[in-house]
Amino acid sequence: MSHNSFGKMFRVTTWGESHGPALGAIVDGCPPGIPLSEALIQPWLDRRRPGSSRHVSPRQEPDQVRILSGVFEDDRTGGPVTTGAPISLMIENRDARSKDYDAIRDKWRPGHADYTYDAKYGLRDYRGGGRSSARETAARVAAGAVARQVLGDAVRIRGALVQIGDLAIDRDAWSDAEIDRNPLFSPDPGIVGTWEGHLDQLRRDGSSTGAIVEVCASGLPAGWGEPVYGKLDAELAGAMMSIPAAKGVEIGAGFAAAAMRGEDAADEMRAGADGPEFLSNHNGGVLGGISTGQDIVMRIAIKPTSSIRVERRTLDRDFNETTIETRGRHDPCVGIRAVPVAEAMMALTLADQYLRHRGQIG
Amino acid sequence: MSHNSFGKMFRVTTWGESHGPALGAIVDGCPPGIPLSEALIQPWLDRRRPGSSRHVSPRQEPDQVRILSGVFEDDRTGGPVTTGAPISLMIENRDARSKDYDAIRDKWRPGHADYTYDAKYGLRDYRGGGRSSARETAARVAAGAVARQVLGDAVRIRGALVQIGDLAIDRDAWSDAEIDRNPLFSPDPGIVGTWEGHLDQLRRDGSSTGAIVEVCASGLPAGWGEPVYGKLDAELAGAMMSIPAAKGVEIGAGFAAAAMRGEDAADEMRAGADGPEFLSNHNGGVLGGISTGQDIVMRIAIKPTSSIRVERRTLDRDFNETTIETRGRHDPCVGIRAVPVAEAMMALTLADQYLRHRGQIG
Amino acid sequence: MSHNSFGKMFRVTTWGESHGPALGAIVDGCPPGIPLSEALIQPWLDRRRPGSSRHVSPRQEPDQVRILSGVFEDDRTGGPVTTGAPISLMIENRDARSKDYDAIRDKWRPGHADYTYDAKYGLRDYRGGGRSSARETAARVAAGAVARQVLGDAVRIRGALVQIGDLAIDRDAWSDAEIDRNPLFSPDPGIVGTWEGHLDQLRRDGSSTGAIVEVCASGLPAGWGEPVYGKLDAELAGAMMSIPAAKGVEIGAGFAAAAMRGEDAADEMRAGADGPEFLSNHNGGVLGGISTGQDIVMRIAIKPTSSIRVERRTLDRDFNETTIETRGRHDPCVGIRAVPVAEAMMALTLADQYLRHRGQIG
Amino acid sequence: MSHNSFGKMFRVTTWGESHGPALGAIVDGCPPGIPLSEALIQPWLDRRRPGSSRHVSPRQEPDQVRILSGVFEDDRTGGPVTTGAPISLMIENRDARSKDYDAIRDKWRPGHADYTYDAKYGLRDYRGGGRSSARETAARVAAGAVARQVLGDAVRIRGALVQIGDLAIDRDAWSDAEIDRNPLFSPDPGIVGTWEGHLDQLRRDGSSTGAIVEVCASGLPAGWGEPVYGKLDAELAGAMMSIPAAKGVEIGAGFAAAAMRGEDAADEMRAGADGPEFLSNHNGGVLGGISTGQDIVMRIAIKPTSSIRVERRTLDRDFNETTIETRGRHDPCVGIRAVPVAEAMMALTLADQYLRHRGQIG
Repeated sequence: MSHNSFGKMFRVTTWGESHGPALGAIVDGCPPGIPLSEALIQPWLDRRRPGSSRHVSPRQEPDQVRILSGVFEDDRTGGPVTTGAPISLMIENRDARSKDYDAIRDKWRPGHADYTYDAKYGLRDYRGGGRSSARETAARVAAGAVARQVLGDAVRIRGALVQIGDLAIDRDAWSDAEIDRNPLFSPDPGIVGTWEGHLDQLRRDGSSTGAIVEVCASGLPAGWGEPVYGKLDAELAGAMMSIPAAKGVEIGAGFAAAAMRGEDAADEMRAGADGPEFLSNHNGGVLGGISTGQDIVMRIAIKPTSSIRVERRTLDRDFNETTIETRGRHDPCVGIRAVPVAEAMMALTLADQYLRHRGQIG
Repeated sequence: MSHNSFGKMFRVTTWGESHGPALGAIVDGCPPGIPLSEALIQPWLDRRRPGSSRHVSPRQEPDQVRILSGVFEDDRTGGPVTTGAPISLMIENRDARSKDYDAIRDKWRPGHADYTYDAKYGLRDYRGGGRSSARETAARVAAGAVARQVLGDAVRIRGALVQIGDLAIDRDAWSDAEIDRNPLFSPDPGIVGTWEGHLDQLRRDGSSTGAIVEVCASGLPAGWGEPVYGKLDAELAGAMMSIPAAKGVEIGAGFAAAAMRGEDAADEMRAGADGPEFLSNHNGGVLGGISTGQDIVMRIAIKPTSSIRVERRTLDRDFNETTIETRGRHDPCVGIRAVPVAEAMMALTLADQYLRHRGQIG
Repeated sequence: MSHNSFGKMFRVTTWGESHGPALGAIVDGCPPGIPLSEALIQPWLDRRRPGSSRHVSPRQEPDQVRILSGVFEDDRTGGPVTTGAPISLMIENRDARSKDYDAIRDKWRPGHADYTYDAKYGLRDYRGGGRSSARETAARVAAGAVARQVLGDAVRIRGALVQIGDLAIDRDAWSDAEIDRNPLFSPDPGIVGTWEGHLDQLRRDGSSTGAIVEVCASGLPAGWGEPVYGKLDAELAGAMMSIPAAKGVEIGAGFAAAAMRGEDAADEMRAGADGPEFLSNHNGGVLGGISTGQDIVMRIAIKPTSSIRVERRTLDRDFNETTIETRGRHDPCVGIRAVPVAEAMMALTLADQYLRHRGQIG
Repeated sequence: MSHNSFGKMFRVTTWGESHGPALGAIVDGCPPGIPLSEALIQPWLDRRRPGSSRHVSPRQEPDQVRILSGVFEDDRTGGPVTTGAPISLMIENRDARSKDYDAIRDKWRPGHADYTYDAKYGLRDYRGGGRSSARETAARVAAGAVARQVLGDAVRIRGALVQIGDLAIDRDAWSDAEIDRNPLFSPDPGIVGTWEGHLDQLRRDGSSTGAIVEVCASGLPAGWGEPVYGKLDAELAGAMMSIPAAKGVEIGAGFAAAAMRGEDAADEMRAGADGPEFLSNHNGGVLGGISTGQDIVMRIAIKPTSSIRVERRTLDRDFNETTIETRGRHDPCVGIRAVPVAEAMMALTLADQYLRHRGQIG
């Protein structure tokens, strides 16, 4: 993981700015013979797409993906499969309104990367946040769809929103089926109305809110991951923290583990039909950096976006004190669209660790 | 970061098992001309050393570091400095008692890497946990001392313990000077007695407890870090989660950011003497993956060790149900010795990002 | 260097097949503020373009490059400069005639990657060689143009053809100015007619010929390169050998050094105006893997292409014996168009080592 | 490959200076369960050891390897096997005579890395060449022995010396068995006496000579290697050029391919018992960067060492003109001991590509 690349064996490099002509991803190291087509990728992009409900940015982007390389007809089935060559995925930007951003050309939005990009690079593409825009995550989701194909049906990855502001779901009401039935990825049908009301109020206030995403992978075998610096949970933590606006990451019991005693935290084992059966999952499916075969369960804290209409104090590029109200089209809760992005990062990390495991162990 | 290596430009590779003859680290890519000697490294190792108080493992390890390469007399000063060649650091194991571990040879300790190592590799060095032992972190601390020399005096890194079990410090009582005055790295003198009593009780119970470590780096300039997958906070999250027993990581406001509104979370800016002055630090010194020049503040949740005398249910290597009580010499709260390790990981990450920044930007 | 990526700090990833819709390169890690535009890249592509003389493939490809990301207007000059974000370069394929390749769909061309791709991947995009086609080198040349901008005017890189078949140039007749005056990149005006006659005859015979490319970089300072496995000459050797059809690489005296005595091979030093003046350059500008400040001089042996009309014995994909005559549009001497590619690989290697040097040394 | 590390999945990092206390290698990513012991590594080191004949350096180094980590008793056989953890190999320096090098403390030996290390790092460990010494190759040979264990008995790697000065072997007299019967690794018994006489004369003259090493790997399957920048031949070229004093590398027909016609260079195929049978091997066992299953045959040009007693002109570190005669204990033909080193680099490259192949393809 460095610069704009993620992964070692299954390696993704993304490119593109929020208001440039297009953005994309190169997936390198993908095994050959894996079924892949634009139709298999598109549904995942549609889940992340702006403009899909009143609770996300109204920017109208069809986010149609094109596969430019790395896929060819299979001799046997005639269907398109990966060839082992790099897969180039491209998504055009259609609804960029750069003039909305003239106001921030010479000011730094507090809580944004505006100042740090200027500090590092000496210049920045200010249109829509340029490279620092969360629009880059479309490329992650597209690449994540390829990773899902590599992992196959046995591995299931699903994310959900478990908290908006201080409004947490009722975990006893959890329903996987519910997640895709509401525009907020809530697994708890009872809280959807409350959340929608809260978001409507925030939008009227010109404000925004934080949230907590939970993402779970099930069905992977025991043994994936690498000690010591390539630990599965360490790489997942890095992957999740690379999501725009992420401020915290935990696995299994997470921060609650700090208050536990050893006899409560250890996940006891009994003999199951296909290997160990664990009596709890406080470790979130990873021990010593290697998967146990249990569900991998992570939570990611997402801060409220700083692109708000409420006036805030800031500086201009000449270090003069000023104030700013951010216009443009923004999500009042970026945590919503972070759900499919967190799923994608889970898929990318697992696909990479899978291939690395296969390389070392056979 | 992969396998047993950490970093890209300032790259550390560690080796060694808990009960092997020695362990060590190779530091590759270190700039030349940096003062370095065993005497400069040793004090950091002494802070992490077992046997230093009744609250940590009684294993007696002097943890004397030897520098085997990469350092030479400076022509000008005559003192030892780095040459730019790889620095080999070695620490001998002196007090390994492998027979303590015969009991776990054929059983998997719940909450430990015993099962996952067997699942991945088909065999494991069970003596003291082998490669999965937290003893590996001695090599991190030694390498971290080299990273500190690279960063220089301007960058200060200090860790502290802010919670043991459910006993949190009083943040208003924070004193940096206090941290090294008590064996628990507490910045709050008032809680030390309470914590010691709690730890004494746990030791009597044969149990253990979780904790929360906080680590802060100050004095680094704005501009370090890389977008998108090499974000400073993402790499720090991965680094901290690679610490044994870590289950959660947060930066700045962390999980509390989920409940915040945008106008509260954005760190407003005013004109300071040497650049921007931020009116708060909810982002923990990183925006868009790049340092703001503020303090970088992280917290790491450490689970209670599973090496406890309380009997737990588990399996043997033939998948027969059994129970286990872990003997051997263990820390009732591994969070204590995680403090210098978290500092080391902060130093390693920053040194690497510093050199990468210098490479791209000049 | 792995899979489809080249370089560590200045990292290029290429994608695309010979007969796919397009091909391209992502340049990641480029320093910010470097002037860059399509107009600055295009001339280098034009030198490599097919269809430019009767001695190269008649495929008509305009090879127009598009910059899709990573470049923005400079606040100060208004001209386009790099932003530090990944630079996405794309070139569309316009004149692919895939039906020419139906004949090789089920046969392996001897001397080609057809068999090895099938052996590795289990399938291949046979149209024009797919990913194994030398058409991929267009992406290298485009990325190499970015690398030249990073290196700046002080570093000059120029390649030439010094041998076609067994017809070697007269080195005493060397003229840098001549190289771009003839379609064969010959520095010796006297041999051009001979070479053209030889190539015309080969084309009539339906055959092909090998060649030797020489590439030289001048103007770089002493000190670039890394010991032991990152040696400048080792990375250049790998870079040059990655050029399609390359079978040998040498630097300085190269293979002739085998027959030399120590006193003749050592490049003696005298005091020059700006540092050492070397009395010879048998080491080709690199000692111990690090640049001396002298010219870096390399030669690359290019084999004759196996895409010839002469009938050769081979197998089909069912391992039946058969014969093949390769039609399609091919270069009788792929060494010609390897000249700009070798220059590009030199530029990419040097730009990467430059940034790595700056990272470690400052 | 960068700095002091080689390989991606099977990754070797070496450390140590010629006159430091020790040198070593860390092998990371090794598959578990591979038989490994000091006794399995030592014979390969003994082949490279100085002091073994009058034709190599008289420095007396037993080069006894110690395995410090990564190996444990196998539950089933009781013999030592790899555990999947990093393997730390250490060799002590016993016979360093640093005072021999006082003369070169302030002078740069022409043709050596003395000047370039000073230019890059601003200082150097001048004792015996420090990190730039060929003594580092002992660590490569030790790591190469681990790689051979990973490759197994099916893959055979053998190097030989095929030319000393301008005295080339008679290829018709080639005998694999002969190679280990003479101290010069000659496959041609008839030339050994001639070579010995030539070397004796060079030693009397205080001079040195170049040589050509040939290294061949047989028994590997078709399909190893990666396009485009991870080509097997490209990585081998980089690996071989990283050997001290290497100035040229070729594979298969090599530089002779430049003078060939297409119909002669293409290796025709017929149906063999276990897949294709190639009628020639001009491509040296690699097509499109991927192995064909044929022998991989490479030649490496080694320059004469510049450590000679003949007086040469040079500069001191203050850029004053002076002369130098290199004393110390040196090989008159470093090509001899380059033979086991080239074998090791072949083994390391193949082991790495094998694991990477297994990772991507399964």
